[in-house]
Amino acid sequence: MVYIAGGQRQVQTTQSEVSADLIDLALGHPSPGLLPLSLIRRAARRLRPEDRPLLQYGYEQGDLRFRSLLAGFLSGGYGTEVSPEELFVCGGVSQALDLICSLFTRPGDRVLVEEPSYFLALRIFADHGLRVEGLATDRHGLLPEALREALGRFRPAMLYTVPTYHNPAGTTLPQDRRERIVELCREHGVLLVADEVYHLLSFAGAPPSPMAAFAGRGGVLSLGSFSKILAPGLRLGWIQGSPELLRTLSTCGFLDSGGGLAPFTSAIVGRLLERGTQEAHLQKLRAVYGARARALTESLRERLGVEAAPPAGGFFLWLGLPGVTDTEALLPAARAAGVTFAPGRRFSVSGGQRDRLRLSFSYYGQGQLAEGVDRLAEAARGFRSPGKGS
Amino acid sequence: MVYIAGGQRQVQTTQSEVSADLIDLALGHPSPGLLPLSLIRRAARRLRPEDRPLLQYGYEQGDLRFRSLLAGFLSGGYGTEVSPEELFVCGGVSQALDLICSLFTRPGDRVLVEEPSYFLALRIFADHGLRVEGLATDRHGLLPEALREALGRFRPAMLYTVPTYHNPAGTTLPQDRRERIVELCREHGVLLVADEVYHLLSFAGAPPSPMAAFAGRGGVLSLGSFSKILAPGLRLGWIQGSPELLRTLSTCGFLDSGGGLAPFTSAIVGRLLERGTQEAHLQKLRAVYGARARALTESLRERLGVEAAPPAGGFFLWLGLPGVTDTEALLPAARAAGVTFAPGRRFSVSGGQRDRLRLSFSYYGQGQLAEGVDRLAEAARGFRSPGKGS
Repeated sequence: MVYIAGGQRQVQTTQSEVSADLIDLALGHPSPGLLPLSLIRRAARRLRPEDRPLLQYGYEQGDLRFRSLLAGFLSGGYGTEVSPEELFVCGGVSQALDLICSLFTRPGDRVLVEEPSYFLALRIFADHGLRVEGLATDRHGLLPEALREALGRFRPAMLYTVPTYHNPAGTTLPQDRRERIVELCREHGVLLVADEVYHLLSFAGAPPSPMAAFAGRGGVLSLGSFSKILAPGLRLGWIQGSPELLRTLSTCGFLDSGGGLAPFTSAIVGRLLERGTQEAHLQKLRAVYGARARALTESLRERLGVEAAPPAGGFFLWLGLPGVTDTEALLPAARAAGVTFAPGRRFSVSGGQRDRLRLSFSYYGQGQLAEGVDRLAEAARGFRSPGKGS
Repeated sequence: MVYIAGGQRQVQTTQSEVSADLIDLALGHPSPGLLPLSLIRRAARRLRPEDRPLLQYGYEQGDLRFRSLLAGFLSGGYGTEVSPEELFVCGGVSQALDLICSLFTRPGDRVLVEEPSYFLALRIFADHGLRVEGLATDRHGLLPEALREALGRFRPAMLYTVPTYHNPAGTTLPQDRRERIVELCREHGVLLVADEVYHLLSFAGAPPSPMAAFAGRGGVLSLGSFSKILAPGLRLGWIQGSPELLRTLSTCGFLDSGGGLAPFTSAIVGRLLERGTQEAHLQKLRAVYGARARALTESLRERLGVEAAPPAGGFFLWLGLPGVTDTEALLPAARAAGVTFAPGRRFSVSGGQRDRLRLSFSYYGQGQLAEGVDRLAEAARGFRSPGKGS
């Protein structure tokens, strides 16, 4: 993990610290050019004297006006009714996961995840002393049968899943599996935590309803964020769940002391929601990322002979390269060629996924993506040749 | 605790929800009128295209430019050199405490606190499964002898202290005690967590150096915040500590996944630091709060015959009322008279402090403070009379 984290650190301080020479296809960040500074500056300018309470300690669950605007936005985006009472405002998915681990688990508890899974979530689980068990997946995502077996065997506290445009695998669970998974978790009294940050980023038709659609009846927490659809630096996201589950979050000591987690930033983003600016920005992102996803897939076919279906949403493409059985071993050659990526093993609980890698198409434009694939092809050629004596 | 939390909830949604009739002297919030919306709007307007990286995932420790500005501001305010390397940017003291508990303690560990102590910190400790032990204090704060004894007896993980303008007791530790306390914690390898949010809010001369002055050498984390000196709704604060201790925070899973905790809000506040606007605002707050503290003390003397030294800083006055041995029992009469306060017992680990109460002078202006004391006097008269048959 050190490498990606290191890469992020560089990028995050000032974008110019990213080596101009390196194309870092591990980066799951939005492009700097897609960060809507002017929209946000304009929203700040529209703060009125009556917004002054949003500089005060905030209501623990999040400002009601903001939650109403967010509920309206999500009802449209999800195609299913979302109520403000089911929303808890937080600083993004990482904070949501940290809070959920603090309040709903104890060190030593087991958490089920997909194999592969989002590797930085795995680090949060480790910090909370949780034992992680990987569940088998196929090209549609988590296998309900694997879940059923693990629920009986491990008596876990929680299932963590990325149902739509999975990170890293890109998979999207079909509706019937979603229903079965929710049903199984409810039967076993296991909290289902769905990381749905990519759900709204669809390029090719709407995905099935999010897990959020099951949240009202309890047992399910759906995590969402403005990081992927607006700007990560705002540190603004939400948890959707039954009022009963949200109460556990709202009444914890941390919230009781500090109040709401994002009164000011939610006031800013509220302005973008009420004017439809967020929706328009999301449409733009869908078009841009969709074109990038297709360009990346096309380059992979042309330059590497890899046939991958273009992702239907999200930030990532998950693939293997012909003849490469250990993508981690390919990294030095890739870096030498001026490109890098996230090797599959980082996403595995069990040291597996070695023949896979994750390419992100969120940060770079189409030209650089094509150039990155060229370099990857060069690295892969050089990498295979010694072993094969060619 | 329910009452104060409930009171906060009401106030926080919209200020108008506070009953116009009730004067809530338990509220540790800044006055709405002191929240500098126009300063913050102006700062947002000054965001430039080169600030765009601050909409990206941020550097885990916090943006270096912001930390440099903050270090400059604190060096002036503390009268002791602060370096950007010793600062970690976070969402305020509650988040800081939550993070510190997650990363530096385990459930079942013991934490030492002053008796009395900030009751919402106690709730955060409870959420982390920590066992809290109270330490004796006098009118200068924590007694080093009590600490020495407890360190040997409990082998605690951590000491939590409010060294300056204590919440609730208003005490300020003299320099020699600070040195002795740091020394004792270091000898026993116990983390010293100093909540220094009131340190800069001095009305009557400078306090001794903050515990932050000892942070560079390790073993000490000093917590600071813009909640008391600018606006709570920004959710922006910092932890000052040795680079080694800060590394534990910066490299945890939560930070590794989400990046810096406040890239955008720190960019806004950075503008206020670099132009001296924050410093000027702080000077204004010192004058306003100082005048309120004196007015409150004066009213108490005139209307209740209570002689209390005017607080030298912070938000609170801690006192007893003649003839009132249980301030919690006084609450119904106080509410009936249209005033409320925080009874001493809320701040006690051991069910003590029953004859004390905390009055805040941060939220109301001088006229309302005087009116609040009038009502308190009325309640105290009515309260004492039945028992005394007068």
